[in-house]
Amino acid sequence: MSFELRPITAPGERLVALAEEHAADFATRAEAHDRDNSFVAENFDAMKVSGILAACAPEQFGGLGVESVHDLMVGISRLARGCPSTAICANMQMIGVMFAARMWRQAVRSSDEAAAAGLAPALTRFGRSEVVRSGAGTESGGTFLLPVVEARPVEGGYLISGRKGFGTNSEIADVISTMVRVRGEDGASYIAGPTIPRGTKGMEVTGNWDALGMRGSGSHDIIFTDCFVPEGSISILGPIGPPSAVALAYIAVANFPLFGANLGIAEAARNYIVDMARTRRRKPFDTPVAERPAVQHQIAEIEAGLTAARAVLTRTGAALDARLECPDDELNARDMEELEKEIQCTKLIVNRAATEIVDRAMTVSGGSGYLSSSPLSRMCRDVRAGQFMQPYSPLEAYEFIGRVSFGLDPYAELRAGAACFSPGSDGESMLNRSEGEKS
Amino acid sequence: MSFELRPITAPGERLVALAEEHAADFATRAEAHDRDNSFVAENFDAMKVSGILAACAPEQFGGLGVESVHDLMVGISRLARGCPSTAICANMQMIGVMFAARMWRQAVRSSDEAAAAGLAPALTRFGRSEVVRSGAGTESGGTFLLPVVEARPVEGGYLISGRKGFGTNSEIADVISTMVRVRGEDGASYIAGPTIPRGTKGMEVTGNWDALGMRGSGSHDIIFTDCFVPEGSISILGPIGPPSAVALAYIAVANFPLFGANLGIAEAARNYIVDMARTRRRKPFDTPVAERPAVQHQIAEIEAGLTAARAVLTRTGAALDARLECPDDELNARDMEELEKEIQCTKLIVNRAATEIVDRAMTVSGGSGYLSSSPLSRMCRDVRAGQFMQPYSPLEAYEFIGRVSFGLDPYAELRAGAACFSPGSDGESMLNRSEGEKS
Amino acid sequence: MSFELRPITAPGERLVALAEEHAADFATRAEAHDRDNSFVAENFDAMKVSGILAACAPEQFGGLGVESVHDLMVGISRLARGCPSTAICANMQMIGVMFAARMWRQAVRSSDEAAAAGLAPALTRFGRSEVVRSGAGTESGGTFLLPVVEARPVEGGYLISGRKGFGTNSEIADVISTMVRVRGEDGASYIAGPTIPRGTKGMEVTGNWDALGMRGSGSHDIIFTDCFVPEGSISILGPIGPPSAVALAYIAVANFPLFGANLGIAEAARNYIVDMARTRRRKPFDTPVAERPAVQHQIAEIEAGLTAARAVLTRTGAALDARLECPDDELNARDMEELEKEIQCTKLIVNRAATEIVDRAMTVSGGSGYLSSSPLSRMCRDVRAGQFMQPYSPLEAYEFIGRVSFGLDPYAELRAGAACFSPGSDGESMLNRSEGEKS
Amino acid sequence: MSFELRPITAPGERLVALAEEHAADFATRAEAHDRDNSFVAENFDAMKVSGILAACAPEQFGGLGVESVHDLMVGISRLARGCPSTAICANMQMIGVMFAARMWRQAVRSSDEAAAAGLAPALTRFGRSEVVRSGAGTESGGTFLLPVVEARPVEGGYLISGRKGFGTNSEIADVISTMVRVRGEDGASYIAGPTIPRGTKGMEVTGNWDALGMRGSGSHDIIFTDCFVPEGSISILGPIGPPSAVALAYIAVANFPLFGANLGIAEAARNYIVDMARTRRRKPFDTPVAERPAVQHQIAEIEAGLTAARAVLTRTGAALDARLECPDDELNARDMEELEKEIQCTKLIVNRAATEIVDRAMTVSGGSGYLSSSPLSRMCRDVRAGQFMQPYSPLEAYEFIGRVSFGLDPYAELRAGAACFSPGSDGESMLNRSEGEKS
Repeated sequence: MSFELRPITAPGERLVALAEEHAADFATRAEAHDRDNSFVAENFDAMKVSGILAACAPEQFGGLGVESVHDLMVGISRLARGCPSTAICANMQMIGVMFAARMWRQAVRSSDEAAAAGLAPALTRFGRSEVVRSGAGTESGGTFLLPVVEARPVEGGYLISGRKGFGTNSEIADVISTMVRVRGEDGASYIAGPTIPRGTKGMEVTGNWDALGMRGSGSHDIIFTDCFVPEGSISILGPIGPPSAVALAYIAVANFPLFGANLGIAEAARNYIVDMARTRRRKPFDTPVAERPAVQHQIAEIEAGLTAARAVLTRTGAALDARLECPDDELNARDMEELEKEIQCTKLIVNRAATEIVDRAMTVSGGSGYLSSSPLSRMCRDVRAGQFMQPYSPLEAYEFIGRVSFGLDPYAELRAGAACFSPGSDGESMLNRSEGEKS
Repeated sequence: MSFELRPITAPGERLVALAEEHAADFATRAEAHDRDNSFVAENFDAMKVSGILAACAPEQFGGLGVESVHDLMVGISRLARGCPSTAICANMQMIGVMFAARMWRQAVRSSDEAAAAGLAPALTRFGRSEVVRSGAGTESGGTFLLPVVEARPVEGGYLISGRKGFGTNSEIADVISTMVRVRGEDGASYIAGPTIPRGTKGMEVTGNWDALGMRGSGSHDIIFTDCFVPEGSISILGPIGPPSAVALAYIAVANFPLFGANLGIAEAARNYIVDMARTRRRKPFDTPVAERPAVQHQIAEIEAGLTAARAVLTRTGAALDARLECPDDELNARDMEELEKEIQCTKLIVNRAATEIVDRAMTVSGGSGYLSSSPLSRMCRDVRAGQFMQPYSPLEAYEFIGRVSFGLDPYAELRAGAACFSPGSDGESMLNRSEGEKS
Repeated sequence: MSFELRPITAPGERLVALAEEHAADFATRAEAHDRDNSFVAENFDAMKVSGILAACAPEQFGGLGVESVHDLMVGISRLARGCPSTAICANMQMIGVMFAARMWRQAVRSSDEAAAAGLAPALTRFGRSEVVRSGAGTESGGTFLLPVVEARPVEGGYLISGRKGFGTNSEIADVISTMVRVRGEDGASYIAGPTIPRGTKGMEVTGNWDALGMRGSGSHDIIFTDCFVPEGSISILGPIGPPSAVALAYIAVANFPLFGANLGIAEAARNYIVDMARTRRRKPFDTPVAERPAVQHQIAEIEAGLTAARAVLTRTGAALDARLECPDDELNARDMEELEKEIQCTKLIVNRAATEIVDRAMTVSGGSGYLSSSPLSRMCRDVRAGQFMQPYSPLEAYEFIGRVSFGLDPYAELRAGAACFSPGSDGESMLNRSEGEKS
Repeated sequence: MSFELRPITAPGERLVALAEEHAADFATRAEAHDRDNSFVAENFDAMKVSGILAACAPEQFGGLGVESVHDLMVGISRLARGCPSTAICANMQMIGVMFAARMWRQAVRSSDEAAAAGLAPALTRFGRSEVVRSGAGTESGGTFLLPVVEARPVEGGYLISGRKGFGTNSEIADVISTMVRVRGEDGASYIAGPTIPRGTKGMEVTGNWDALGMRGSGSHDIIFTDCFVPEGSISILGPIGPPSAVALAYIAVANFPLFGANLGIAEAARNYIVDMARTRRRKPFDTPVAERPAVQHQIAEIEAGLTAARAVLTRTGAALDARLECPDDELNARDMEELEKEIQCTKLIVNRAATEIVDRAMTVSGGSGYLSSSPLSRMCRDVRAGQFMQPYSPLEAYEFIGRVSFGLDPYAELRAGAACFSPGSDGESMLNRSEGEKS
């Protein structure tokens, strides 16, 4: 009787079974990619072949028809047991497919045949894993919803200049999505999402990813220098400010499955240390380490952490799935904020539990886990990435959760930031000043 | 959109609705019972009238037919929002009804008409809430599964001597259940469960309950002095030692719903402090306390704690319900140990989260929560009872969880304890010695 | 070899020896005062007789000549081992004496004979413990440095109206000190400290103290209703705003020794549970509870907590003593803020450690510590008072410490608050509004 | 006004001044050595030249005459601010000098001229930093006091076979000390300390050091294969079992200063993040990150952690110095155990505080600290080594502290282990078995 997470839909079952197969293979290369700081290219290729990357495409486009965000999260957790870097790369690709599939289903549901047809080519390519995507949404000093990088309108399109970071998959991505700021004809600032093919002039994928962990994820910086993006490749998402209900839905879809990566790391750390404690014997006694009460206490805390992490992931994931069953135009912003609050609570719990689990496992290892030859020493580094993932770091999450709980506007600061860009404000000059001073 | 726990069965819906009604009423008296250290008698009477105490009886016996342990836990959590003492008193009664109802359903399922008929009178009385039960299973220095209090066989029954504690409901109980040790004719020691009517000669309900919290629960010590119990009123449950799969099932049923009490306390503390922060204004500023980022951080931690507590309760409760669907004779001891491990992890998480939530709420209160006039000062005391509840205190739970995780016998110490009572051991003499020395 | 705190001056040695004698006596009555919510009157009388209350008076005034704040803290910790309520009552009195003694020594040092002579009568009475003081500095919603209660100037003095709380010792105090706001002739607001004899018309000592813990401390609310205070009984301390270096010194003297109370509670809890674990034996085994590794782990955490609490108290106390050696006029505000930062860090560490120690001791007790008959159940309540003591609650301390660390003005909000009272601001109207809405 | 640690002796002042100079230089190379996993050779050479490595030699031997273990710890903390790997390498060398100097002073004090003369050559070489030492005391599965690696007596000496780990400095060490087991002529097992020159046949310094952190410390495994050690190069320290008072004194001297390494890391992390928060500005606002209350809260926790770490280090260090003032033969084992308990509490507090400080600093960094280019990402790895340092890991420390607190024999298990080696026991066979099964 196991309490590991299980998918809740039939397509999810297939996805998770595939993920488990992959994980066993990926585990054999995780240490090497980590040591060499090399992209998990052959893992990614294997996932193209198996079809797991296309799992969220509808079946008629060659996918498995996975619609459940919950099940995608479970799949990511299984991949992460073998190789966390690969898990977040897979997620980057799979949420792109899930986005497109959801938009297509929404179009079909509302009998908008033109929209459905317009999405079909992309879904076909996603269904064949012909196109790899990367999203680079992070800016130093900025936030997800308040990009400072600007796209300036020119004839037939926009010129983008600036720098984005943490572009997972960018090492091999065929297209790169990001978020930029656009000044509208009315003088107001808008948020916009360009999608830019690799090789576009003025977009440099730096290849500079070198971090504490998740070293195989190729999460390079992207530098834009007057990079031209034609009008058709950029969606104006709305004025800078509080996101709409639909935007919140897509933000949730994009980020929730990632939490599974830390669950997978924690599960792998637990399994590693349980095996070690059962087989390693203390000298000169002939008893396994597992017989020590102090070790039993540590594993009990590890198990309690897993119990909490799994329970919040499955409950919140199911709630997210249930919410997303309705058409986009029936989504309600206040409800989505409440859901996002629960998602942020889930993230805090999972990331803390996973980090603590790995740390406890290392303590139990008695020093051997500190050596590079132990997977614990990699897990200890990989697990710490989770807290920095979009849309909120812990310090931002406290504020978001707190304000929603109190019925206060969670976007008060975002509104103030947006005002900096409005006509007549001195936002630009402040911005220029702060650019010069940034560390 | 609320993330509070919801029942998962239709009878559970009715139970929870009743509990919410009661809670609003009980909240008006919670402070007084706490201050006076008086039993929640009128609450108990109201619950007899409403029928909630009989909720777990089958409908033909006048109950609501609640079979879900999960839903009973949710009901207890709702009661605890109003009055935690009343919630644990209700649980003490309701699990007795649930036990009898499960035994009756097992008998019906296996077409054992005699057994079903034998259980009918008790169920009828439970269905009418005519009989109130108390269970006093705790001994100083002993454990649930290893009682030292002995029932000595005499003509037609047994004589019991010893002291039991934490007998919730004992203030008004019509019958009191406990656990004792019996020396069999083979010299081996057995565990046995006598049920003794109030007023039996040699059984004194001391009326001495006076504790940090849960002061309205009437959880007195019971002193037995050569108390005669006829053979028919005592079930010999088996040799002292590892519990059977069925015993583990009943232990789980008896204790899991209690975890809901601490969830209810935590939810009440959260609601109290959110209201305070939204309405209290800081002087001489005209801003609500809720606008302070430091307060937002605290409420975020409170919300994260609730997210974790609710998720583990509902996931583990559903797993327990699923497991209990099979007939008793198909239960498997190893599976039940794995389930009990998960239940103990759940208990750790819920009790820690609830305790921390109340402590944080008091910190946010800024001193007013420290006054007796604040419900927080009562919650701070009530919430600390949870860790001491059966079958495992935290220190015991670490060992149990750890040993099950490692595939070690979780009852190794219990076996050693049982051996102290076996013929030829010097357990008795040790026992006598330790009696004399106990603090 | 013991690592308990030791005084660092010879007069301190005498103070601590006296405190230890008192503590043994007070321990016999701590439970009764707690249960009855009665003031520790006989303890206070005994401390008058022994002279410990006058310890900080110079020897020529009948005191022990204790000048070390460190040693006063150690003495308070010893008293708290016996009775925490008495310890904070003693502190309330003794810091008054220490204040007066320091002012007198400053006057003597600077050959200001008039000032010295002016202070002599008060010191003489303090030296004989003829006068008991209480300080009631807390207001609901306000802060120590920003009192909202106002003293309105009238012929020959002031009329005070408003409510103050947490007036430790007020049950028996001969004089009550507090902090009020005064509107100067220039229209600006000043902070002022009136000292008001018991029995003054318009000052009601409510007798309403009833809290979670520290129940013997008589910390009643004081209600002022047009209470007349003659000009000579009120010191105008300065404009509302950042405190001067000298003010910071007196704030430190007043509050630092109180931290000793929680150390004393923690030490008593440790001693209680160590004794219990060594003497209580587990049934049916004949081994003391102390042999259980899980119990050893808990006591190890308790010991580590004591190690931390003692070390920060003695190091910060010695630093405070060293700083106070210079004359008042050589004190530097920035240095005092740095010192206050360290003091606030010390408070956080000591209060957290002490609270955790008591909680762990209760967990080890296995349920017996939850009963009112156990001193642990009182300690669990008493220890939680520390966080609310002046001048900063934890949430305020985080901000203060953080801002000082970053070189930011720690009084930015205080300045903003003060501005609410300045001529032309709408502070008064806001104030009135918030009064009406306060919970 | 700074609360950083200060030396308490004049020679310590000079040591610390030198350490600060070195640290500024070492900081420029810390990242490179970490990245390349290369020994800090040029740092070590610079420390030979400056004379800091010889600081603990008496002045007549060319040292600074540092006798204070406290001050050595402060010096190590300063070095660790610049380069933690170098700090632990320096400690490995400096405690060797301190050992020899203490033995020499003991000899002089007791007028044992022969002994003093015998130590002079080694001290002379240490005073000139002509000889570099490494100590490799760790065995997988074994403990410091219960070595399994055996030295078998042969003609004129011993043959050693086995493997030792964590041999800091072994990359360049001229001599390597370790701990082995020797079977005496009486059949009993003894503990012995061989000192073996580099290049000795049968001793391989593997060069395999590759760990999560402390990567510049050259802490290779040492493999012994029938390595011959002449009788004069091995000290028989006594029967395997509880260490003597003198042994405990040397264990304390050897390990206490190391705690300073984690303090230094924590201080450097604090300084780094304070600088970042003061200078980095949030976009598009023109405010420094330091103005965010959530950031102020984190720095407050960091400061509180430093306050605790510094206070316990300085208090316990001073207590250790005081204890070591007496001659070796006046040391008392029970007192030394109490002191070692306090030292272990100190280690727990410092290591936890330092680890938490680095983790919090990384959280505040908002992702930039996760990059390899940030010193935080190295500190996060280096700081985790501390818990594994001799003589006790955390799980062992809980037991040691707990047993000493309860007055139980802290060496009960060591005695049992020693018994495995005694004549007639089946320890050898068990040992062989466990060898075969070790992971």
